[in-house]
Amino acid sequence: MRSNPTMYADLHQFWAETSCEDRLSRFQSLTLADRQEFFQQLSTRHQFEIISHLDEGEQTIWLRLLDPDDAADLLQEAAERDRARFLQLLDDTTRDDVQALLKYREDVAGGVMSTRFCRLRPDMTVSEGLTYVRKQALETVETVYAIYVLDAGQQLLGVTSLRTLFTSEPPMKIQDIMRTNIVTASVEDDQEKLSRLFAEHDLIAIPIVDGQNRIQGVVTVDDIVDVVQEEATEDIQKMGGSQALGAPYLEISLTGMLKKRAGWLTVLFVGEMLTANAMAHYEVEIAKAVVLTLFVPLIISSGGNAGSQASTLVIRAMALGELQPTDWFRVMKRELISGAVLGCILGAIGLLRVVIWEYAFHTYGPHYWRIGITVSATLVGIVLWGTLSGSLLPFLMRRLNLDPASASTPFVATLVDVTGLVLYFSVAKVVLGGVML
Amino acid sequence: MRSNPTMYADLHQFWAETSCEDRLSRFQSLTLADRQEFFQQLSTRHQFEIISHLDEGEQTIWLRLLDPDDAADLLQEAAERDRARFLQLLDDTTRDDVQALLKYREDVAGGVMSTRFCRLRPDMTVSEGLTYVRKQALETVETVYAIYVLDAGQQLLGVTSLRTLFTSEPPMKIQDIMRTNIVTASVEDDQEKLSRLFAEHDLIAIPIVDGQNRIQGVVTVDDIVDVVQEEATEDIQKMGGSQALGAPYLEISLTGMLKKRAGWLTVLFVGEMLTANAMAHYEVEIAKAVVLTLFVPLIISSGGNAGSQASTLVIRAMALGELQPTDWFRVMKRELISGAVLGCILGAIGLLRVVIWEYAFHTYGPHYWRIGITVSATLVGIVLWGTLSGSLLPFLMRRLNLDPASASTPFVATLVDVTGLVLYFSVAKVVLGGVML
Repeated sequence: MRSNPTMYADLHQFWAETSCEDRLSRFQSLTLADRQEFFQQLSTRHQFEIISHLDEGEQTIWLRLLDPDDAADLLQEAAERDRARFLQLLDDTTRDDVQALLKYREDVAGGVMSTRFCRLRPDMTVSEGLTYVRKQALETVETVYAIYVLDAGQQLLGVTSLRTLFTSEPPMKIQDIMRTNIVTASVEDDQEKLSRLFAEHDLIAIPIVDGQNRIQGVVTVDDIVDVVQEEATEDIQKMGGSQALGAPYLEISLTGMLKKRAGWLTVLFVGEMLTANAMAHYEVEIAKAVVLTLFVPLIISSGGNAGSQASTLVIRAMALGELQPTDWFRVMKRELISGAVLGCILGAIGLLRVVIWEYAFHTYGPHYWRIGITVSATLVGIVLWGTLSGSLLPFLMRRLNLDPASASTPFVATLVDVTGLVLYFSVAKVVLGGVML
Repeated sequence: MRSNPTMYADLHQFWAETSCEDRLSRFQSLTLADRQEFFQQLSTRHQFEIISHLDEGEQTIWLRLLDPDDAADLLQEAAERDRARFLQLLDDTTRDDVQALLKYREDVAGGVMSTRFCRLRPDMTVSEGLTYVRKQALETVETVYAIYVLDAGQQLLGVTSLRTLFTSEPPMKIQDIMRTNIVTASVEDDQEKLSRLFAEHDLIAIPIVDGQNRIQGVVTVDDIVDVVQEEATEDIQKMGGSQALGAPYLEISLTGMLKKRAGWLTVLFVGEMLTANAMAHYEVEIAKAVVLTLFVPLIISSGGNAGSQASTLVIRAMALGELQPTDWFRVMKRELISGAVLGCILGAIGLLRVVIWEYAFHTYGPHYWRIGITVSATLVGIVLWGTLSGSLLPFLMRRLNLDPASASTPFVATLVDVTGLVLYFSVAKVVLGGVML
């Protein structure tokens, strides 16, 4: 928790909308007090932007203003050689803390936690505890609201809160007021798991422990709000068929954005080229019954839409921890029924459409019933297939240690398009064989 | 903040996986103490499920266990006539609080806030303040960590924290230690805005005020983590082309889920039927140049993919507050360039593909260059068009007071499919006219 958050709404707006040069000169034009406070509120990316344009004397000032976890985040933005130099600018205790944090990836608990938390011994009295917490509160502990009770070996024995301490009788022992059933996380747990723990248990802080239940740090809920937003943003962007942008839409450079988008779009395009092969394979049939091609876009897009729905629902449920890898069979059973029902609905509408159009406009010729049945049967099949593959692909992704969110809407659509064409013309051969084909 | 969150991990698991009857009998089998604590941890939906199966005596016990904001959430699940009856079961003060909260929609600040917050007068000393906060902490205030300084008319003058109070000199006045630049929200602000404020300013609580700056309640960050998750889930599900499920994937009934999915899928299907009309319009051309149909799936899906990317990025940026309605022109300029570049990349690959295939397999006949140019030019156009419409549709949605997230991937794809076909055959007529058509 940053200690003193204030508005600076207009400054934040300015920061989001201008170029690097404008931001730097605006920053330098602020009073020192404003600069101090505003700097701490800035995102890591913007803090790094400022730091990297200052001389070493000023760099020291701003770096030392940061809590160890924020300093570690900033250093992770820096290139390898700058990182060592920045580390030297920190005071000794902070440097040790930051180095400990830098051991962990940015997106695991160890990389998000603060190493400065409030601690007490179990045999202290409440009044001793209050004095001791007050002393720690004057220093730079991240939060004084969650207080951890440790033994001499840093083992986490219990947790209490300033509120409990504050409302307990002074002579009581800490060990008698502390809670011992504690929600903890491991340094290696990813931040998605952390955010689930916060959401489920309505906590204000979670202690992070190593394999021997020794406390390593603490993650506070206010830091997790950003994490939850970020994780959702990354998932959404991947599900929409691009790489995660990693920066606000208007702030990322145009070339940066194109790089994130062109890759997947090209991969999908190359995959989708298989549809041209599939179509070419049936060129003879198409030439004989051109009417079949009229329904190609309708059919493949229906499969794609059904697949999008299913994959989106499953990917999100996985991210929220509602679905575990072992649930694939339950999901398959559900989606088998869903796909069949949805397919029958669209199939029925498709059949109606062909029949009605024939009565109204005589579009499809004497074999319109057979055409209707071909379209309708294919729709049932492709919606079922789209639903099934859309819902199971995220499981496969996770099994392969890939991000399930990469089973994006366009990816599923592409898969279904190619196979859907084969299905359509195969059904047509059976239903229209000897009549039109 | 619920005061004493504990694990019950196995119980929560059980709750997520069984039927209503099993849950109820399991609940009744717990000790009273466990029931009390576990009940407070349950989601509103599950709390309501239990309450609605108990007799009035028991209903009173469980309802009175809840904080006013949680009770208000629960009552919003109930039917109109039950709501009045449940209200009568509450004690008088809570009933007043709950009735005040029920005036607001569930998804605005007024509906999320707690009415029990910690307050002080500006002319108190720090030591008086501590005594007074201690008294309030023993009651049911939501949080004692954010403390609001009010005048006699409930006007919000400043804010301080238990930490500041705790570390200030006892004779100082509250008005001398309080901060006066405060981040507030209005009762009518929607929860998406609240979550942005929390994420931007790293706050632990935000006071909610009315039009006259009188404090109405407080929202704490731990309640917002759930909100952020929920909002993202709703957006993701809509963007995937279904209605928001409103319940975990495995918990929603199969018919419930089908209802949420069939609607949009049918609408999209009916919209997509226009592709059959568009194709029929060009039936003569297709019959003359069957080769053209081979690229139909490739072309329309490329437009759809480009549109998905753009709409996803814009919808998310809007939800995060990075894009305002007035930004549409800036977005249009960006996407015009992005679309053109991405279109040229895919167009070039498309052209190469036709030429290489012709050299390798002699697939496309003597006019392969013209076919290549038709495919390639259409790709540039459709990717540009998909990108533009995908990025601007969310702005249009918001203008029409609809949820931008409803400009879903499949919705954009459908739009682009129909128009893309018209574009393709129009380009073909120009390039191949007099030669093949």
